[in-house]
Amino acid sequence: MGERSIWAWGTVDRFPDLRNRQQLAQLTGMLLGGGPAVPGPLPAHDDPGATLVLPEARSAPPAALGAISDASPRARAGHTYGKGYPDLIRGFAGDFAAAPDWIAYPTSEAEVAQVLDWAATTGAAAVPFGGGTSVVGGVEHGGDRPRVTIDLTRMDRVLEVDPVSRAARIAAGALGPALDEQLAVHGFTLRHFPQSYAHSTLGGWLATRAGGHFATVYTHIDDLCEAMRVITPRGLIETRRLPASGAGPQPERLFLGSEGTLGVITEAWMRVHPRPRWRATASIKFTAWDDAVLAARAIAQSGLFPTNCRLLDMKEALLHRVSMDGTHVLLLGFESADHSLGPWLARAIELAKDHRGTVATGPIETDEQAAEVAAGRGGLAGSWRQAFFDAPYLQSALVSIGVLADTFETACTWDRFPALHAAVTTAVERALQDECGGGVVSCRFTHVYPDGPAPYYTFLGRARPGAELAQWRVIKAAASEALAAAGGTITHHHAVGKVHRPWYDRERPALFAEALRAVKRTLDPAGILNPGVLVDL
Amino acid sequence: MGERSIWAWGTVDRFPDLRNRQQLAQLTGMLLGGGPAVPGPLPAHDDPGATLVLPEARSAPPAALGAISDASPRARAGHTYGKGYPDLIRGFAGDFAAAPDWIAYPTSEAEVAQVLDWAATTGAAAVPFGGGTSVVGGVEHGGDRPRVTIDLTRMDRVLEVDPVSRAARIAAGALGPALDEQLAVHGFTLRHFPQSYAHSTLGGWLATRAGGHFATVYTHIDDLCEAMRVITPRGLIETRRLPASGAGPQPERLFLGSEGTLGVITEAWMRVHPRPRWRATASIKFTAWDDAVLAARAIAQSGLFPTNCRLLDMKEALLHRVSMDGTHVLLLGFESADHSLGPWLARAIELAKDHRGTVATGPIETDEQAAEVAAGRGGLAGSWRQAFFDAPYLQSALVSIGVLADTFETACTWDRFPALHAAVTTAVERALQDECGGGVVSCRFTHVYPDGPAPYYTFLGRARPGAELAQWRVIKAAASEALAAAGGTITHHHAVGKVHRPWYDRERPALFAEALRAVKRTLDPAGILNPGVLVDL
Repeated sequence: MGERSIWAWGTVDRFPDLRNRQQLAQLTGMLLGGGPAVPGPLPAHDDPGATLVLPEARSAPPAALGAISDASPRARAGHTYGKGYPDLIRGFAGDFAAAPDWIAYPTSEAEVAQVLDWAATTGAAAVPFGGGTSVVGGVEHGGDRPRVTIDLTRMDRVLEVDPVSRAARIAAGALGPALDEQLAVHGFTLRHFPQSYAHSTLGGWLATRAGGHFATVYTHIDDLCEAMRVITPRGLIETRRLPASGAGPQPERLFLGSEGTLGVITEAWMRVHPRPRWRATASIKFTAWDDAVLAARAIAQSGLFPTNCRLLDMKEALLHRVSMDGTHVLLLGFESADHSLGPWLARAIELAKDHRGTVATGPIETDEQAAEVAAGRGGLAGSWRQAFFDAPYLQSALVSIGVLADTFETACTWDRFPALHAAVTTAVERALQDECGGGVVSCRFTHVYPDGPAPYYTFLGRARPGAELAQWRVIKAAASEALAAAGGTITHHHAVGKVHRPWYDRERPALFAEALRAVKRTLDPAGILNPGVLVDL
Repeated sequence: MGERSIWAWGTVDRFPDLRNRQQLAQLTGMLLGGGPAVPGPLPAHDDPGATLVLPEARSAPPAALGAISDASPRARAGHTYGKGYPDLIRGFAGDFAAAPDWIAYPTSEAEVAQVLDWAATTGAAAVPFGGGTSVVGGVEHGGDRPRVTIDLTRMDRVLEVDPVSRAARIAAGALGPALDEQLAVHGFTLRHFPQSYAHSTLGGWLATRAGGHFATVYTHIDDLCEAMRVITPRGLIETRRLPASGAGPQPERLFLGSEGTLGVITEAWMRVHPRPRWRATASIKFTAWDDAVLAARAIAQSGLFPTNCRLLDMKEALLHRVSMDGTHVLLLGFESADHSLGPWLARAIELAKDHRGTVATGPIETDEQAAEVAAGRGGLAGSWRQAFFDAPYLQSALVSIGVLADTFETACTWDRFPALHAAVTTAVERALQDECGGGVVSCRFTHVYPDGPAPYYTFLGRARPGAELAQWRVIKAAASEALAAAGGTITHHHAVGKVHRPWYDRERPALFAEALRAVKRTLDPAGILNPGVLVDL
């Protein structure tokens, strides 16, 4: 894998080139009006010889941790932000004010504990860092304390595989592809493919309750977690490997979603899957959005449990190169390592047709691994897949041509969805009009539940140079207020971090917040872990 | 519904009559050797005119709560114990030493709060009580403080139904049948059928993470809970109705399994289902237990998600009148309100045959509601169903003829199951030999997961009059020690209560225990709620 960019998504070598950025400028010029922008020069940060301006460090790595520490400007700049829109803007501008003093790269739990001990002794803030792909300010320092960031990526091994129970013990710093490569040797895969897959880690997924590949049943990483080990400032918590238990509140659930505020997740036993052999896919077009939503609901409530049930509205279908004819598209997929899936898909298609859907591609059934790669990833679903993983690169490229581009997501019950969707779309369109003179809002469903969808919104507008952060804050607040008022959650899988904190604080019952604070005081009495995120002391 | 028994399972009118108890004595005489017992007289407790000896009350209901209070001996005796073996023994003997001083029957959340306020002011212990079916000492008072038991069964209404999202807001004191009757008016059912179904409440299920009807996917009540309201001594916690969220640790998960120690669950939004219309069932016989286990594992890992995947070992099959020929039986069932299930069942049967299973009944497919009641509940599954819900009556009847009869359950990963099963069976058989001069241990799987089964054990031995509790304690400890040593959980769905506390304390990571205590101190600072259960101040 290439070098990770200091400011942009992913690796430097995959950043869209000038020709791609010019095409993007053409496209967004048409979408947003006012003609294409002229792509300006990119910042030189990713050039190894470039000078990076970093704030003065408040602390230096202690001698005992010298071997696993890096206080260089490049390391500090590369660990300053996640990859949300405000992060890209600040990174692009060379503003690394939030940089850590130094980065620790522990190679063992003992070293993680040593770093936490140092932080407690020094009164430093310690931020756990996996792949650094947070879009909610989840890895960003603030305040006046000394700052260490704990990069877990040197702890990246699959440590043990239990083929009988289909589970694997995996170190938390493993990135998605590295983890799956190691599992593939044993014939398994985790099959957890968030959009950040290539650049995010198991520990990050667990700490933020990442949403993955499966549209139903195993939607969050939570559902794939059998047991975990967490190094808290007070010591180790290790839960027992169990398929399920009824013994008190589930311990793992306290750390799933703890966002690095209660401890550093160092490893987990994860439920793994054999590589699927059979796939059945289809894509369905709808003229009316309401029909498409009804179809998605019918399928979510059918008990068919599709792996993929991704509804794209017409704009989303256009932006992702799935459909150019103004229809909404439902991407349906079933997969199994055990059996062919014709009857499953056939019934799902019937349900879609009941709601005036038209089959655009499929049903495609494949029952060989070789054929499946070719066929199952072709068609509209294949277009989608490529565009899906390219989207974060696209966002960085949009930033580089002065387009304000971001996403937000939620979940709500089906009865509330029509009003929520209308209110959110209206609020964001209005904010885009006010701040950017217009813009585009699109929607897709990433996951569907029997009682509601997880809608995911993308918006685009023109940025005013120098005012991007202010513009973004207005639009983000409008979106978040609308979600909260309509009974959605502030996040289905992007996590809370610092960005969602005001709305999370309102969504979270007050006494539950007190309970969480009590837990925080117990496990992290000095309040060293990820201050400002999720919960305060 | 008839009058609930003071000492035995269920209602007085359904207690097995003398002829049944004589048959039971014959059967257990054969099973345990030594010939049939002669059924003695039953205690007169259930006779409305009977005198019950209760301990002196330490407190009386305050005048303000007079209208919702009952301090009569019958009410106190009927709320003294759950329905575990030691409860039946003590209740049978007329020992009501653990009786509450009085029972509060709140009809509103405000009244629940009033009772908690009284307890805090008085220094009393308050025990939330649903149907009183705990088998782990979860509703039993102890210690020297004044004692109130809060019976929730007057709060038993389905309060709201959302047919679009398929969810219903239900008061926590609703018993299983009452709740389903009210939902049926709207075409829905909760489809949560623990063995205690007829006599346990929604709130009890939620507080104890009850295991239900579904063998896969929605195994615990946790998975059906969308939102809840809890009255803590500090005030109300209400979570937002959401199909899912990634905003911090899931708040409901702190109260699922809290066993009345953090607050009183007063209502919940529950995910409901339309009544199933299509069913496909089969039963498969196996000569070798190991083959049967492999078949259950293959099906659990297939992604077919059967509703029923209950494996009975030969003794279990015999005791439940499912098979008398010494084979182990796998009961398979699929159900749906949306589609027929032939291909699902066909593949599951193939997997069972791959492991040397022989189809005993089925495949039976039904696609009409009327036909389904007749056919789907016939055959071996029908025998099972009846025996399943009768079993708790049977246990009470066994107690009345001097047979020591109890169950325990766990969950473990598949790789550990063979060793766990051997160790547990050996330990319990040895304890039965030592304590009872012999006995029987049987096993079934109640739920199956991709990474492991939930085995459920039943044991029978001869009780020595007057020594029953001592005998039981030795056997229970032997079973629990064996489970713990083999890496199982102390409970998959019976909860912790007071009975499982020593093993739970060892299973639970020490720092997680500290975190829970911190939560307890926050929400219940005076420690009034269910002292001795789950967690101490």
